[in-house]
Amino acid sequence: MPLSAIALNATLKSSGGGPSSTDRMLSLITAAMAKEDVTTETIRLADFNIKPGVTSDEGEGDEWPGIRQKILDADILILGTPIWMGQPGSISKRVLERMDAFLEETDDQGRMVSYGKVAALAVVGNEDGAHHVSAELYQALNDVGFTLAPNAVAYWVGEAMGGTNFVDLQEIPDAVQKTVDMLARNTVHLATLTAANPFPGEG
Amino acid sequence: MPLSAIALNATLKSSGGGPSSTDRMLSLITAAMAKEDVTTETIRLADFNIKPGVTSDEGEGDEWPGIRQKILDADILILGTPIWMGQPGSISKRVLERMDAFLEETDDQGRMVSYGKVAALAVVGNEDGAHHVSAELYQALNDVGFTLAPNAVAYWVGEAMGGTNFVDLQEIPDAVQKTVDMLARNTVHLATLTAANPFPGEG
Amino acid sequence: MPLSAIALNATLKSSGGGPSSTDRMLSLITAAMAKEDVTTETIRLADFNIKPGVTSDEGEGDEWPGIRQKILDADILILGTPIWMGQPGSISKRVLERMDAFLEETDDQGRMVSYGKVAALAVVGNEDGAHHVSAELYQALNDVGFTLAPNAVAYWVGEAMGGTNFVDLQEIPDAVQKTVDMLARNTVHLATLTAANPFPGEG
Amino acid sequence: MPLSAIALNATLKSSGGGPSSTDRMLSLITAAMAKEDVTTETIRLADFNIKPGVTSDEGEGDEWPGIRQKILDADILILGTPIWMGQPGSISKRVLERMDAFLEETDDQGRMVSYGKVAALAVVGNEDGAHHVSAELYQALNDVGFTLAPNAVAYWVGEAMGGTNFVDLQEIPDAVQKTVDMLARNTVHLATLTAANPFPGEG
Repeated sequence: MPLSAIALNATLKSSGGGPSSTDRMLSLITAAMAKEDVTTETIRLADFNIKPGVTSDEGEGDEWPGIRQKILDADILILGTPIWMGQPGSISKRVLERMDAFLEETDDQGRMVSYGKVAALAVVGNEDGAHHVSAELYQALNDVGFTLAPNAVAYWVGEAMGGTNFVDLQEIPDAVQKTVDMLARNTVHLATLTAANPFPGEG
Repeated sequence: MPLSAIALNATLKSSGGGPSSTDRMLSLITAAMAKEDVTTETIRLADFNIKPGVTSDEGEGDEWPGIRQKILDADILILGTPIWMGQPGSISKRVLERMDAFLEETDDQGRMVSYGKVAALAVVGNEDGAHHVSAELYQALNDVGFTLAPNAVAYWVGEAMGGTNFVDLQEIPDAVQKTVDMLARNTVHLATLTAANPFPGEG
Repeated sequence: MPLSAIALNATLKSSGGGPSSTDRMLSLITAAMAKEDVTTETIRLADFNIKPGVTSDEGEGDEWPGIRQKILDADILILGTPIWMGQPGSISKRVLERMDAFLEETDDQGRMVSYGKVAALAVVGNEDGAHHVSAELYQALNDVGFTLAPNAVAYWVGEAMGGTNFVDLQEIPDAVQKTVDMLARNTVHLATLTAANPFPGEG
Repeated sequence: MPLSAIALNATLKSSGGGPSSTDRMLSLITAAMAKEDVTTETIRLADFNIKPGVTSDEGEGDEWPGIRQKILDADILILGTPIWMGQPGSISKRVLERMDAFLEETDDQGRMVSYGKVAALAVVGNEDGAHHVSAELYQALNDVGFTLAPNAVAYWVGEAMGGTNFVDLQEIPDAVQKTVDMLARNTVHLATLTAANPFPGEG
């Protein structure tokens, strides 16, 4: 059975706000995953009212529950974020906080609802910060139950203090495309294994 | 002339949402600063519509410009945040992103609007993460022009995997109070110096 | 075929330097892995001359090559480190730097020598820092080819500004033991899968 | 009275090991500080036997005590480190750990031996990581008593996955030189103030 993925774009801009560098990187990843028979739905998080909080439903007007369900329905989560000040964007932090609720959402063998799902990252910025952003996201996602394949991030940043956007590059650098392909291969391979072989649980 | 401070409470809860541990730590700091003749205004960020973005005014409905003005009117910025997943809360990240605009807001000698202001931190959580949260905030605040006195953070966290909130502690631990007093002394001392002796600029 | 593990203890103390809190946590993990039929060898890194550098052999007197071979011979790497200043200890950083060489040590399908191996962490300190230490180590280990099962860290820290060592606790807290067991189950399950099903490579 | 500075070069290479990119950035900073009448001594840390540990003297063969004394004799500490895996190099971590001892080395008013000293950073790498390295170093240095002027880091990194060394750049980019000059101006200005106006202490 082919796998499915959900891609969350945590750019600070809503859909009407112009082209997104994060979206470009996510598109490369979803194209590479399509070659591995994975179907991906991409969501622009800034288009939704995701309330601050650490529960799975923060009440009236909160649009997180629908996004959360899509994560639970997918085999793979791809989280894409811009870098600001060398750190993850605030919208990526918001959705990680909402996934903190997974810690309490376990089955009778102590396994979180996220167990068996594999996560991967897309990180872009004008300059500097991709490794640290991936560190923050790996840790938060691992804490809330996701599995990580080797080389689970595809990223691009320019030279120090540069101002070029990834979305404005005329060509995708070979090193980026190679990383994207590796990420897709590894992530899909691992997600296939974990989907077929659930983590054992404490029982 | 006595100094003034602005305290930003980045708890995920708005004012109606119950007691805030971050607020308790901020209250300790503002009380200690009051002894040094500093007047502080505290703002609960979750009560305001602070739009995502990296400019100083993100348009209709954006309530950041008013908060930004209070920061520029004060000598000291106290940023308080809860820890989630060992990392800064998303609301603290949001306001740091908005201060990213300071990088372009310089006088004719290259000095940002924030130059001469001193920053301090209040960080609380059930468990683990205070040092890293202060690292993230120090770096972002330093990048956008703030000065840091030694021991610029007052923090509390419980034992690993604990569930106690700082707001529920019956007594303030001595070590916390000592840190708060040290933070207030150092920060006010340094802000007095930098307020009277502006950074020189490139001219 | 049963799996094997190598545990690296990155305490700053050599074997003669007294009991190690990191060692206690590693012992819990290796005991839990033994129940899953995994045999572990534990190495105290401070007993060896691991030269600074980013190659696999830094020349005369360098004892890294022998440790590196043990990593390559094992299915699972358990990296244990104390927390200092809320950050990973310098000896854990040293061995991660030496593993940076894996980036160039690939087979003809672009797979690093570490591909298929699963990593897990033991992190201890008097207070604060375990989440961040795990973030730094996850990122570095993932960059150099390791796979991560969910909840790949077992940790303990005391209350803020506390001075108790993990090695001096009279009893292991239930939450710690539960985390250790979960880590062992998940890591061994995943390592069994990846050992039997190699990552595909670019060819 | 003119100020003095100590620059610590935490490159992984000892003096015989070829040109150091970190050294080039430190040279720019010390030249800019010389214009402000600051005399700097630069030390290549890899040339010394700095033992692992968290005390000020780790016994026979430990060469940290001499370096520590130079730090205490100077008004300004410039810490330069290469980036490895997006993180601070292990030798910079080693010396920060040794400065952890400052936490206990206080006068009768609770002021560490480092109080009044101002720190600045030089950070270089082939690619990515300068912001995070500065975050780690700011936090550790602030914890152990150093003051930080705005824009306390001068850094350079190349484009994502690049392989160029800073020491091999034909020209220093304007943005780097501008940052170096700003760092020198701000750091020397603040160190002049704190040298003349000691932090008050708890008495």
